[in-house]
Amino acid sequence: MELLNQHVSIRKFKDQKIQSSVLNSIIYSGIKASTTGNMQLYSVVVSETDDVIRKLTPLHFNQPVVKSAPALLTFVADVNRFTKWCNINEATPGYNNFLSFFTAAIDTILVAQNVCIAAENYGLGICYLGTTTYNAREIIQILDLPKLTFPVTTVAIGYPDEAPDLTDRIPVKGVVHWEKYADYSDDDIKELYAFKEGLEASKKYVFENNKKTLAQVFTDVRYKKSDNEFFSQKMFEVLKEQEFLI
Amino acid sequence: MELLNQHVSIRKFKDQKIQSSVLNSIIYSGIKASTTGNMQLYSVVVSETDDVIRKLTPLHFNQPVVKSAPALLTFVADVNRFTKWCNINEATPGYNNFLSFFTAAIDTILVAQNVCIAAENYGLGICYLGTTTYNAREIIQILDLPKLTFPVTTVAIGYPDEAPDLTDRIPVKGVVHWEKYADYSDDDIKELYAFKEGLEASKKYVFENNKKTLAQVFTDVRYKKSDNEFFSQKMFEVLKEQEFLI
Repeated sequence: MELLNQHVSIRKFKDQKIQSSVLNSIIYSGIKASTTGNMQLYSVVVSETDDVIRKLTPLHFNQPVVKSAPALLTFVADVNRFTKWCNINEATPGYNNFLSFFTAAIDTILVAQNVCIAAENYGLGICYLGTTTYNAREIIQILDLPKLTFPVTTVAIGYPDEAPDLTDRIPVKGVVHWEKYADYSDDDIKELYAFKEGLEASKKYVFENNKKTLAQVFTDVRYKKSDNEFFSQKMFEVLKEQEFLI
Repeated sequence: MELLNQHVSIRKFKDQKIQSSVLNSIIYSGIKASTTGNMQLYSVVVSETDDVIRKLTPLHFNQPVVKSAPALLTFVADVNRFTKWCNINEATPGYNNFLSFFTAAIDTILVAQNVCIAAENYGLGICYLGTTTYNAREIIQILDLPKLTFPVTTVAIGYPDEAPDLTDRIPVKGVVHWEKYADYSDDDIKELYAFKEGLEASKKYVFENNKKTLAQVFTDVRYKKSDNEFFSQKMFEVLKEQEFLI
């Protein structure tokens, strides 16, 4: 529990490679995660060379964490391998569709989280890169991902060279519903987000971005409607190119 | 690592309730998981009453594990709460789109896996129900899920009343790619799946289903193309109804 409860994303790593035996060990623990029908619809691409990391860096919007990391793990929803297995076993696969993609994506993320926990248990630090879905098409090209695969998330990993404070979360009662979903009143919302809004870091953030409220930093700067709509459209196109929407 | 490596799904539970303090504690650990921009785009609905579990059971295809479990945790991609926060803070939210749904789904599954690991650390057993996406529309009705939410996965949870053997996995080298994806030859596939195909349980499974190969049990019985296509279409419709595809 302590390991889970003390989790914090690491964005600055020591200049120290990760032994391949360690990587193999954490991925071994990763694939012990539950997987639909034990189909294991995922792959993990490990990028460690300067050449590949340099190509991936702009696709992750040049986040400093990417340049700092000795390794990037791209977690790929993968129906390709299972489909090939069907094809050589006189079975007609039917996994080139959205449900199969989403099932594979769930499998993939369960593995990713197990890998991250195993990594932290080894003293490694991790940071998820949400940018993977934004630039899936370009990542597919760089990593030679075949049809019937899709990169779902990427984890930057290495030995921590910083020790950040824990990140705030809204109270547990704000995310749990007993028996049925109890929708939130305005007062509920105000109460749940009061702590976050009151943090000095949040106030600084609002000031630096020249906004009036913390929510505006999200809607106007970090996660804008126009960007979300642009990348939604792009993600659909890529799902089609990868033959998940035929 | 031992906890991760010894994971096995539990499908038969003791007739023993889970204390709400335990549930709160494992969900507390759950929400320590990484989340995009610390937006926490998820909710967890805990179902423990006979009435709600009885209604959910057929939606999970009457799997015995559902009837046996003292609690079901439905993990919900939730942009509703964050959108409400924006609305009362003079910010114009832009999260009614596919990318935001998928981002929320990733957040949600990271929490689910943390909750499962925390639960196992408490001596509880878990089983993921992949059926959630199949019948999302009906689950939404039963759990009163509002627009801008979507049930991504469900976990049956309780104290184990069985101790199954570990489940087989293909070798780690079958899922890891170094630097770039190395696509699989027929010989690669045969080697990776040889162990699974050779298991007595697999042979029995093929025989009982009157099939020629193990792969045919998947394509003709368990995960059929026609079912996948039907539920893909349905999932899209529900995403639209929940206002993620406007």
